[in-house]
Amino acid sequence: MAEKLRKYKHDLDHSYALGAALTYELLRKAPQTARRVYLHTAAERTEGLLRLLALCEKAGVPVETGDKAFHILSPKGNCFVIGEFAKEEKRLLPGSHIVLVNPSDAGNLGTILRTAVGFGFLDLAVVRPAVDFYDPRVIRASMGAAFHVRAEYFDSIEDYLSRFPENRRYAFMLQSSVPLGTVRFEAPFSLLFGNEATGLPDRFASFCETVVIPHSRDIDSLNLPIAASIAMYAARALAP
Amino acid sequence: MAEKLRKYKHDLDHSYALGAALTYELLRKAPQTARRVYLHTAAERTEGLLRLLALCEKAGVPVETGDKAFHILSPKGNCFVIGEFAKEEKRLLPGSHIVLVNPSDAGNLGTILRTAVGFGFLDLAVVRPAVDFYDPRVIRASMGAAFHVRAEYFDSIEDYLSRFPENRRYAFMLQSSVPLGTVRFEAPFSLLFGNEATGLPDRFASFCETVVIPHSRDIDSLNLPIAASIAMYAARALAP
Repeated sequence: MAEKLRKYKHDLDHSYALGAALTYELLRKAPQTARRVYLHTAAERTEGLLRLLALCEKAGVPVETGDKAFHILSPKGNCFVIGEFAKEEKRLLPGSHIVLVNPSDAGNLGTILRTAVGFGFLDLAVVRPAVDFYDPRVIRASMGAAFHVRAEYFDSIEDYLSRFPENRRYAFMLQSSVPLGTVRFEAPFSLLFGNEATGLPDRFASFCETVVIPHSRDIDSLNLPIAASIAMYAARALAP
Repeated sequence: MAEKLRKYKHDLDHSYALGAALTYELLRKAPQTARRVYLHTAAERTEGLLRLLALCEKAGVPVETGDKAFHILSPKGNCFVIGEFAKEEKRLLPGSHIVLVNPSDAGNLGTILRTAVGFGFLDLAVVRPAVDFYDPRVIRASMGAAFHVRAEYFDSIEDYLSRFPENRRYAFMLQSSVPLGTVRFEAPFSLLFGNEATGLPDRFASFCETVVIPHSRDIDSLNLPIAASIAMYAARALAP
């Protein structure tokens, strides 16, 4: 190994796709970022694995066989292939965006990415403080969708707004009196969602149209990936 | 303690609400099932806790202070209140239902319960083999919604259908060519969803109308709670 293998941390310049299916997505969708593939000595030589190894060869990605990487990166032991890939700085393209303000949970972010890609939203703005997009738990929960999107971090919502002033802004918040079913989404638009526990601050109503997904009083709120997914479905089904 | 405290298992006649917020929901929504409340010696006497203890007194639920229960039931140690409650056999009422066929993940089932209650679906059929509704991880992921619903297990889909032959049946499956946006839901109806990994078997098309939530080919599928939530939102928004 050229450099010492380390458990993922935010300040590394690379991250890891844990598992064969995820590594396969990495090699298909972002082969230019793949640095190497670790192969466990106990990995079964399935057809899927042979296809994966063929992709490595095609992309010139070195394959290292051995178990040490797995002890360090996946101590639970149900993982036999790991893809190491370089983080890339990406910039949002103009168009419709998903904007997550202070998301804190890795699994939630990954699930939102998966749905976003499913509904054709490929640009994701994340306002800090927020969970790390490249956390391997995000990559895994996204089921590989993370390799499809352009995710860009902003220090404040104002930074985001000043870059994309032309977008219509729809802020999903419980404080709104406008039910989702009545909204006509006009592209390009931004769908904004707040933190899991606290939602969007009231002040967002001063620069966004607000929207609520009506639900019964028997629950406090929908969970964040559920609310975001319903919103993305509705916006995509209605928008051109 | 009258009986020996045991870690949750499927064959116990009771289960546990882990945490103060969840125990509060238990005492509010299903006090008749609450058997006792365990209070950690380090629990802070917040206003919320005092309200919870007042509910215990009102419902005649004994409170035991001590730490042993927490070592056994919540070894991770971030939980200071546990509510023990009796499992109740429940039967579905006639009306619209959510039908989960072979769900396998506790967190997913809990998340679906939360959304179902949010959209007014209070009757849930579960076809075995399936995750245990009373698993404390289900109760926790439901954020207390589990205490609102009638959940009933069936050994086969035929058992369910023979009890509710009058319901319109909408089976959500990738093999369908009918997009969700074109469906007119007619109540009473049943929304059917398959296992996380395998979905619904093809044969369901012979006794259900099939529906698909259109998504791009860049993902294999939406995850189960996301698909179920979008379907419940759409059905509820369209049905009377």
